[in-house]
Amino acid sequence: MRAYLDHAATSPLRPEARDAWLSAAEVVGNASSIHGGGQAARRLLEESRERLAAVLGCESIEVVFTSGGTEAVNLALKGLWWSRPKGSDTIVLPDAEHHATIDAIEWLRRHESASVRPVAVDARAGIPVAGFAEAVADPRAALATALVANNEAGTVNDAAGLSAAAAERGIPLHLDAIAAFGHVPVDVARWRAGAPAGAGLVALSVSAHKIGGPVGVGALVVSRSAAPTALLHGGGQQRGLRSGTQDVAGAAAFAVAAELADAEREAEAARLGVLRDRLLHGIRDLVPTTELLGDQRNRLPGNAQLLFPGCSGETLLFLLDQAGVAVSTGSACQAGVPEPSHVVRAMGRTEAEARSVLRLTLGRTSTGADVEALLAALPDVHARALAAASPRRRSESAVRPAS
Amino acid sequence: MRAYLDHAATSPLRPEARDAWLSAAEVVGNASSIHGGGQAARRLLEESRERLAAVLGCESIEVVFTSGGTEAVNLALKGLWWSRPKGSDTIVLPDAEHHATIDAIEWLRRHESASVRPVAVDARAGIPVAGFAEAVADPRAALATALVANNEAGTVNDAAGLSAAAAERGIPLHLDAIAAFGHVPVDVARWRAGAPAGAGLVALSVSAHKIGGPVGVGALVVSRSAAPTALLHGGGQQRGLRSGTQDVAGAAAFAVAAELADAEREAEAARLGVLRDRLLHGIRDLVPTTELLGDQRNRLPGNAQLLFPGCSGETLLFLLDQAGVAVSTGSACQAGVPEPSHVVRAMGRTEAEARSVLRLTLGRTSTGADVEALLAALPDVHARALAAASPRRRSESAVRPAS
Repeated sequence: MRAYLDHAATSPLRPEARDAWLSAAEVVGNASSIHGGGQAARRLLEESRERLAAVLGCESIEVVFTSGGTEAVNLALKGLWWSRPKGSDTIVLPDAEHHATIDAIEWLRRHESASVRPVAVDARAGIPVAGFAEAVADPRAALATALVANNEAGTVNDAAGLSAAAAERGIPLHLDAIAAFGHVPVDVARWRAGAPAGAGLVALSVSAHKIGGPVGVGALVVSRSAAPTALLHGGGQQRGLRSGTQDVAGAAAFAVAAELADAEREAEAARLGVLRDRLLHGIRDLVPTTELLGDQRNRLPGNAQLLFPGCSGETLLFLLDQAGVAVSTGSACQAGVPEPSHVVRAMGRTEAEARSVLRLTLGRTSTGADVEALLAALPDVHARALAAASPRRRSESAVRPAS
Repeated sequence: MRAYLDHAATSPLRPEARDAWLSAAEVVGNASSIHGGGQAARRLLEESRERLAAVLGCESIEVVFTSGGTEAVNLALKGLWWSRPKGSDTIVLPDAEHHATIDAIEWLRRHESASVRPVAVDARAGIPVAGFAEAVADPRAALATALVANNEAGTVNDAAGLSAAAAERGIPLHLDAIAAFGHVPVDVARWRAGAPAGAGLVALSVSAHKIGGPVGVGALVVSRSAAPTALLHGGGQQRGLRSGTQDVAGAAAFAVAAELADAEREAEAARLGVLRDRLLHGIRDLVPTTELLGDQRNRLPGNAQLLFPGCSGETLLFLLDQAGVAVSTGSACQAGVPEPSHVVRAMGRTEAEARSVLRLTLGRTSTGADVEALLAALPDVHARALAAASPRRRSESAVRPAS
């Protein structure tokens, strides 16, 4: 039996979401068609939009369904950039954001001459509200973005505080809630309370497959007062913000997964917190040098980002995989080339430390057996990873001149 | 029992595609994850990419999965625009393209200062190769686009001829094969044969839900020699052309639907041609003034775009829907406001004629009973639509001064 400790990468599809998908997929009709079949599809779509909006604490019309988190983030950042006020050219970007955010903004920097104002995160990958407030006060600030919870370190930020800071300076804020949604409370109405039109939290990204919905479905909450430029043009669906035949089955499955995740959230947080702590204590008993990164308390309940000094995270991952335990290094893996985690670097750690990290993430299907499987495999895996570390470096430097 | 004659809007999900989706959705793992579960998802994804590539006549690495046709078209047009050679600023745009194309290019015109060089279509909505060749010879041409088959009129264009014309001038061509795929042969290798790198057919859009795959899945074939700028940045998936967690279940379902559509294509074309002709003859017997628009022979087998002089297409649609028959006006319906079809206008027809059109489209699940249902409903529906036309015009003009 395999143990899956990588729920942050993707979480198994919930049976109820699968059934909602199947049932909606049987409705024959394009939701933009005028005939009865089209209208039936449309009703199901709008009902799903309402259900998701209720979970997110926003209005139904504010929910723009997308093909996933990456599209939602790209729509928010590029869309707000293209519709920015004249004279503004700076994007406020904390140091430990997700790659969808970093890479979309890097494109805006290179291609659209955007300037970037970084915000240093603290040693736990948290975004300090004071530092963020200083950055959004930049007179050239056009927009700001921030993670609600860090997808690698699990640290939960003060979303309401970040929104208030942006609101005070009249700057529109995108919040990436993809890692947070379903695990900690996400409440758009509360977070943007008191913000003037078009400032503070105006856009928020979520993704279905992180909470047991299908892959390929996400949403961007777009405030009525915000008008980001569309990325996808065509039929003018979804307030013209996101054209394309609407994925009714995906939306229905997402709504069901969101409702279930929300209903279970507190009980699951307690259950996963206990499992995570068992995991942590067990690991520290076996490998006392292990260090838990990120905020020790204020973090996603199922997340444990761990530093194993002297080991390669990649080697640990491979050896655990051979032992039937699926984990992640938490580092971005682009085109098969693992990079040291920029999140760990942003915490002030060395590159060697950034290469020695594992991210273990628990979720809905996690049980004590998963924890036991990891603890059973760890002593041998850790010993082999430690042993592999030094000889490999020697052999690499021996090989280098010939390459 | 309802009769569905709107397969061009969306075609019912094939059971085999549904089963492929379900089976793939059970694989737990993000296709970008390094562990065994991720690699299993990745293998399924790449196998689906190979199967779709085989049907399309391209290499596997050229298939970029997207969230649907609209995203594929937007990626092709904006991506090729942003990566155009210096000094070029003109997009070659035939007059009767799909709204995803028109609206993406309209955005490039307004927002990115693109120039547009139109190509007049003929009276059957076909793109004349000679007129297209003249347009791509524009010294400022940056890229060109064309429909393989017109989604409203059903007219099939000479894709190989259009590609050769673009290739001769060194211009990259995007072909929108969304309406054509599964109904007429689509063969990327043949269409681009002999084209130099980066010219002629370099990008081709297809969509899953038009051929019995799920909504929310499409693909853009991108030649190895083309490097369109990405629309969605992030994890760097799919050659960096389309970031985002890959929808393995959607890809698997699309591949199955594509293989089935391709295997059935010739037999289905014959079967649907017979049904369509029965439909046409029956309609002409009942309403002799009816005119079949588009090319009379060289058209999508299940398509009948019909002009009912003196009637509102919208009224016909509503009355047929009440009688249990689902059809389309074929006109774009944006934000609930039906516009007269730009395709019919591009054929040289009047606005009144463009408002008097129905598009009837047959597909995999169509039977003689669907044809009979339409023919049974038509006499009464047509008489009522005719009667409604004149009084409504009078009442509208009577109301106008007060509005």
